[in-house]
Amino acid sequence: MGDLVNVNGEILKPEDAQISIFDRGFLYGDSVYEVTRTYDRKIFLWKEHYARMQNSANMIGLPLPKTFDELTAQTLKVLKESNLDNAYIRWVCTRGEGQIGLDPNLATTGNFVIIVKEQKPNPQTWYDDGVSLLISGVERNAIAALDPNVKSGNYLNNLMAIKEAKEKNFFDAIMLNKQGYITEGTTFNFWIVKDNKVFTPPMNSGILKGITRDKTFEILKEQGLAFEEKLFTAEEALAADEAFITSSTKEIVPVNQLNGVKLSSANKDSMTMKLNQLFVEYRNKRLEEDNLTY
Amino acid sequence: MGDLVNVNGEILKPEDAQISIFDRGFLYGDSVYEVTRTYDRKIFLWKEHYARMQNSANMIGLPLPKTFDELTAQTLKVLKESNLDNAYIRWVCTRGEGQIGLDPNLATTGNFVIIVKEQKPNPQTWYDDGVSLLISGVERNAIAALDPNVKSGNYLNNLMAIKEAKEKNFFDAIMLNKQGYITEGTTFNFWIVKDNKVFTPPMNSGILKGITRDKTFEILKEQGLAFEEKLFTAEEALAADEAFITSSTKEIVPVNQLNGVKLSSANKDSMTMKLNQLFVEYRNKRLEEDNLTY
Repeated sequence: MGDLVNVNGEILKPEDAQISIFDRGFLYGDSVYEVTRTYDRKIFLWKEHYARMQNSANMIGLPLPKTFDELTAQTLKVLKESNLDNAYIRWVCTRGEGQIGLDPNLATTGNFVIIVKEQKPNPQTWYDDGVSLLISGVERNAIAALDPNVKSGNYLNNLMAIKEAKEKNFFDAIMLNKQGYITEGTTFNFWIVKDNKVFTPPMNSGILKGITRDKTFEILKEQGLAFEEKLFTAEEALAADEAFITSSTKEIVPVNQLNGVKLSSANKDSMTMKLNQLFVEYRNKRLEEDNLTY
Repeated sequence: MGDLVNVNGEILKPEDAQISIFDRGFLYGDSVYEVTRTYDRKIFLWKEHYARMQNSANMIGLPLPKTFDELTAQTLKVLKESNLDNAYIRWVCTRGEGQIGLDPNLATTGNFVIIVKEQKPNPQTWYDDGVSLLISGVERNAIAALDPNVKSGNYLNNLMAIKEAKEKNFFDAIMLNKQGYITEGTTFNFWIVKDNKVFTPPMNSGILKGITRDKTFEILKEQGLAFEEKLFTAEEALAADEAFITSSTKEIVPVNQLNGVKLSSANKDSMTMKLNQLFVEYRNKRLEEDNLTY
């Protein structure tokens, strides 16, 4: 079949998949979302993604329209019909429609959307060469204003950063908080390696609690490798030996330059490429263990 | 006819008005919007609202899908068909659809939506008694992160503040910036009166450049009344004689209590009620001058 969308239980072709213009996701970004992918017809870490979506929803007081079991069934239904071996999956849950007004009490029952589309493997050049990152001039949203740990329909802050990066011919961007510490990328967590020790910003820098980030911690622990969650500045990042990004669709990708400063992250014997390999092993093991097939 | 929606030129009943779930307004809040109203079949300050929407769009590099003349024609079309004497109008312009990804270069041609619905007069109790405001614990978005002067599809920051206000039985909320200065309400500008002088926070506090706010400045100047754009704290606001809010749908509304502290804003002889009366006169004059009828 190919790419498909499940809108509130109805399976539709992408060009027919629509939502009411009164949906609060459309009017205010009043929604939460998650993205993962499948590998050879197995869904990766769905339980973790649902738990995080539940957490995002709790943080803004949005009732998820479907339970874990219900949304699992709806996901398997659309994946089966799509017949895609390797699919990108995006779940969007909104606060629903109702009379126009910002007050969330005006909302009716929430809407849900599940997008599945073909997921090509990440380009080999990402691993051979690495990717370039700009340290953006766009400041990351403050925790006290809109906590970046809510994965919501409000992504203009991040969008302004990737827009700046593309204009300056970078692959993507990372952002600083008001205090000048590095937080995260526009759609990924950020890590550096210095003297064989791995560092990533802590939650209180103002970031999303990445699922690949969590799994990378597990791998580092299991392997007895030195690591620390620690605040660091742009200057410290620029003085690192290596840097890499983690995300659910990108997994672990080496960063070969930061603001034009070259890093050796994509070298064959780098810590980054070692972690990348260990992550692939972890992923394949978890896919077998969970065995969530369609 | 009643309430209607114009979606990219097609006039639809509210229950049939839909947009692609791939629209970036739905996925990321990647859109700008404006709201005004009509009085006896005359549109109020449309030119000013289009100019502000253009400014919001410029600030996030979003190309508006329609010129002023085109969007005027589309607006008059849906208003005529609605046959509403007094209508609320909401314009939403998005960056369009395209391949999923935050990078704005992936976007196709933008979509536009014009919602018109019956606008009842504001409740008389707002003017007789005033409304209550909470000084919210939710910090206003920082200018360096996502400038509040962009009127966009990202409204979760404001939503969290009104949510808190409703939970505590307030009418609505105002928000402080990181430095502890008052900025604006969730969907309105905020003013205080102290010793017959009128104060409102300046743009650099982190606010939307309100159109009713601008017109109120004009009235204050014309009447030779004392006023100043000035940063002030919650403590200063609580020590005010009066307070009021301005917005395009609410015009000028007295605030009778702030965090439980009573204010005399709704008194018959208050500065607030005098400005309210002057604004009604200004509005009626402008409606006649512009004479943008349907």
